[in-house]
Amino acid sequence: MNDKPSPLRETDEAARRLARTLLRSARHAAMAVVDPASGFPSVSRVLVGTDIDGAPVILVSTLSAHTRALANDNRASLLAGEPGKGDPLAHPRLSVQCLAKPVARDTDLHQRLRERFLARHPKSKLYIDFADFQFFRLEPQSASLNGGFGRAYVLSGDDLLILSPENEYIAVNGKLIVRHLLAASPSLPATLTQNETALQKRNWAIYAMDAAGFDLKSADKLARYEFDAPLKSQGDIRLMITKIAGTVP
Amino acid sequence: MNDKPSPLRETDEAARRLARTLLRSARHAAMAVVDPASGFPSVSRVLVGTDIDGAPVILVSTLSAHTRALANDNRASLLAGEPGKGDPLAHPRLSVQCLAKPVARDTDLHQRLRERFLARHPKSKLYIDFADFQFFRLEPQSASLNGGFGRAYVLSGDDLLILSPENEYIAVNGKLIVRHLLAASPSLPATLTQNETALQKRNWAIYAMDAAGFDLKSADKLARYEFDAPLKSQGDIRLMITKIAGTVP
Repeated sequence: MNDKPSPLRETDEAARRLARTLLRSARHAAMAVVDPASGFPSVSRVLVGTDIDGAPVILVSTLSAHTRALANDNRASLLAGEPGKGDPLAHPRLSVQCLAKPVARDTDLHQRLRERFLARHPKSKLYIDFADFQFFRLEPQSASLNGGFGRAYVLSGDDLLILSPENEYIAVNGKLIVRHLLAASPSLPATLTQNETALQKRNWAIYAMDAAGFDLKSADKLARYEFDAPLKSQGDIRLMITKIAGTVP
Repeated sequence: MNDKPSPLRETDEAARRLARTLLRSARHAAMAVVDPASGFPSVSRVLVGTDIDGAPVILVSTLSAHTRALANDNRASLLAGEPGKGDPLAHPRLSVQCLAKPVARDTDLHQRLRERFLARHPKSKLYIDFADFQFFRLEPQSASLNGGFGRAYVLSGDDLLILSPENEYIAVNGKLIVRHLLAASPSLPATLTQNETALQKRNWAIYAMDAAGFDLKSADKLARYEFDAPLKSQGDIRLMITKIAGTVP
């Protein structure tokens, strides 16, 4: 037994949903690695995307210090969730411990990550194909969510992943599914983002989907809509489509 | 000789000034430490202040994971500089490698840090005196500045410190000096912040000074005005006062 007062709360579905939303709607994150020469931790800013299973993805120059550090020790930590107005510590943020896996070019995985990253960060087109730029999948091992003062939660790596047998199907067919949904329900992006504080009047668009939800953007803002539960079968996908068609004009 | 193209530029005074300004005007930073149990780097958000010599200062709970990590290995890394609109990587940011030194209570140093931290973060009054909260001075060892794409610079720890024999004098008399300056030149805060993009109409106030410049705030925005060179003598202090009185109405 530990007699110290624990600042941790029991991790519930609301905490998991907040953590996933923070990670999946991040444009950028602070990434920490261990510097091989000095042993110091080293933190820098990276653009982030996600793979179809929710794993964070970074695109980095092989000339950069953080990439050299990852080649030596692939343990990394990401901080996602930007503070808005008022006290920076009152805003939720997520720290994720990950193992960084380099992604070889000329693979299906590279092609998928490239397409998803470009949809999220169109300006990366300028350098995404440079010979010295490389993708890493950052596979979550554990995480801690700070939802604001006194609201701390511990999560597992799997809490942040989308464990669905339909991941590959949706990776291939997600664009078609979204196009179909929008044809039937043109107001879908506006409906999905109606809880975005003070951002309701923006021109939101769905730029990607996966088995757990939709990724939306409006100018340089990103948002995330999470389904009630991940789609785990063709039946789940059909139900989601039917539900949206029945409730969204 | 290294035949690889170096992404580093020669560190000049403009780079040092940008680095100091980023660090000294930060409200919060991402701080990375090494987790003692797993060896993983771990990054989280902290409020930051500065000591009179420019060293970053944090106030953290001894119950938090980062504080336990620092007790085991006091090597830390701070990322300062928030992205604004547009591409997050086009905005300058600074990574600083530091050694974290705990600050004992009931010392002059603790009293000084407490006063400076409260001036920057008034809401910390709610917990600054809690028994389980502790200050650390983060003493800079080295740093890297990324001023935007292709603009990378290496800095020394001393580049970020204010090495002046007048530090202690200004720590004691800074408030009086500022009061004197404002009585003679009421528009001083507005003049010092006239280059703050799109923030010119805010109600800026000087809340602290040190031998290298003034700290300014307006609601939850911070700004930094750096002197041309640090004040290193009583003569320098008098010259600064005379210059402001002669140029600012």
